Amino acid sequence: METIEPVEWRGDAAGGSVWLIDQAALPQEERWVECRSGFEVAARIRDMTVRGAPAIGVAAAYGVVLASRSRATTKEELDALAASRPTAVNLFWALEAMRPLVPDGPERCLTQARSIHRADVENNRRMGALGAKRLVDGMNVLTHCNAGALATGGFGTALGVIFSAVEQGKQLHVWVDETRPRLQGAKLTAWELTRAGIPCTLICDNMAASLMRARRIDACITGADRITAGGDTANKIGTYSVAVNARHHGLPFYVAAPRSTFDLSIASGADIPIEERAQGEVTDDRKGRVAAKGITAFNPSFDVTPADLITAIFTERGEIAPVTSARIAEVLG
Amino acid sequence: METIEPVEWRGDAAGGSVWLIDQAALPQEERWVECRSGFEVAARIRDMTVRGAPAIGVAAAYGVVLASRSRATTKEELDALAASRPTAVNLFWALEAMRPLVPDGPERCLTQARSIHRADVENNRRMGALGAKRLVDGMNVLTHCNAGALATGGFGTALGVIFSAVEQGKQLHVWVDETRPRLQGAKLTAWELTRAGIPCTLICDNMAASLMRARRIDACITGADRITAGGDTANKIGTYSVAVNARHHGLPFYVAAPRSTFDLSIASGADIPIEERAQGEVTDDRKGRVAAKGITAFNPSFDVTPADLITAIFTERGEIAPVTSARIAEVLG
Repeated sequence: METIEPVEWRGDAAGGSVWLIDQAALPQEERWVECRSGFEVAARIRDMTVRGAPAIGVAAAYGVVLASRSRATTKEELDALAASRPTAVNLFWALEAMRPLVPDGPERCLTQARSIHRADVENNRRMGALGAKRLVDGMNVLTHCNAGALATGGFGTALGVIFSAVEQGKQLHVWVDETRPRLQGAKLTAWELTRAGIPCTLICDNMAASLMRARRIDACITGADRITAGGDTANKIGTYSVAVNARHHGLPFYVAAPRSTFDLSIASGADIPIEERAQGEVTDDRKGRVAAKGITAFNPSFDVTPADLITAIFTERGEIAPVTSARIAEVLG
Repeated sequence: METIEPVEWRGDAAGGSVWLIDQAALPQEERWVECRSGFEVAARIRDMTVRGAPAIGVAAAYGVVLASRSRATTKEELDALAASRPTAVNLFWALEAMRPLVPDGPERCLTQARSIHRADVENNRRMGALGAKRLVDGMNVLTHCNAGALATGGFGTALGVIFSAVEQGKQLHVWVDETRPRLQGAKLTAWELTRAGIPCTLICDNMAASLMRARRIDACITGADRITAGGDTANKIGTYSVAVNARHHGLPFYVAAPRSTFDLSIASGADIPIEERAQGEVTDDRKGRVAAKGITAFNPSFDVTPADLITAIFTERGEIAPVTSARIAEVLG
């Protein structure tokens, strides 16, 4: 299956630049944005032109190539990248993988960034094939937010599992949570699934529970932004509610995420920093204020699903089930 | 506490008319709409100028006064009212209470409609005082959709309980579910609570679960559109997810609803007709399409919360707890 790669390096190491498909403009417009410095990549991560934990990691890796070129501000550019978004750990993982190579210059950095990018796509294909074994012909699968090609170097994590199952000849129908407040489901997941010709239906996040009760959902699958050593998983706000409802209805809840999404330095989900974003994302639509004047909004971007609500985590190194520290250490060790 | 009455009869029985505050225009604009026939009232129920089960009942009662004036189309007007929305049973209850008086003419009908309206407000005050006993000073209370003065003849059901507790001197903070897709929480509940000076914070529906996990919600309370003899409760889509999450986190989940919301002819929630509304409510914002082209949306307006997830139902005749057929029969008997 052909999927989009939302981050590209165009040109050579000395003169090239990073190009991002503008995910804030999708699905209305397919527009590519150029970044010519680490600062510009950081700004595009912050404003969510590029979003999705693995895609942020790949973009940051290429951002380091740009930073390595401008000796005067290299350190500031690296700091800007590190400060762009707090929750997705792939960002920090990519920066750590790139940082030792900065003294070697842009050529070496670009080789490394390309290798991180290629590995991400290969890992997604591997975990997709693995996770697809859990999906049965005829299933109705719920997904939340966008964990597709757009959220990664390419192919996707949660959607990668769905793409793999479809490649294997399984017929699936996907329920797409719209994913308030930024509607990545309605905009991005819907865009990817309709492009791929996979049957899908859009719902408001609050409708999933009643579909589960009506046995119209058979399994849930999401991506992740950070997974602790114990398996607690930060992902887009609303994921935890899906997991609680899945448990209540006896349905499997799966996570698909590469090794780079794990933060084994943290034992508990309570220690994951949760980004809060602007109130306007909740109170306004594209025409202006919707909410009544005078009410403030709370807008955390992520929540944490505890390990015990997760049936299995699919990684490029194998399936983690049950989701326990011991099994995580065994698979990732 | 002064609250709005969203439905008014203005003038005498022979020449007067029904006026509705346009709830589709709130909170941006406080505009009143006149209805001069049963057909017009039916159209305004259908397009949700007036919404909320008890408010629909009151509007329909006044609509019958108008219908009773126009002998040529009385039957058609009554039929139009009955066909306006399928789920809220207060509509059918009000029509049944009014129908026998139609032959007596508009004067008699107006007396009855006014009495239904006054009784609704009094009932709300009574169940408010009752429910308020369950709320403790300092509590954080979650509500979904709008079950305030706007949803009733006046004062409100779920918000009536909150208003009563505040009148009793209790300090509360209310978490307001925005309530996709029509955002009655962001628009209407936020409008009522800020007008009343009650501290409140707007959230997306999918955020409530993580607030519960963080112990930042102490209780949940909603209204209802139809309650069966066994206590299964149809209410705005998303209510069921709140109830499942409340159960998972060991929190009380309350419903406030008058006798007129009960449909004792139905034993199980599976028999409640659930209205489906236009896909555009999910796929579009005020500026046009948001969702990717080609995806269809599922848009049920209501879901059903089974009796066993409801801690108590507050009615004007007493508190129903536990929520069982026997206890319902005892309180409403």
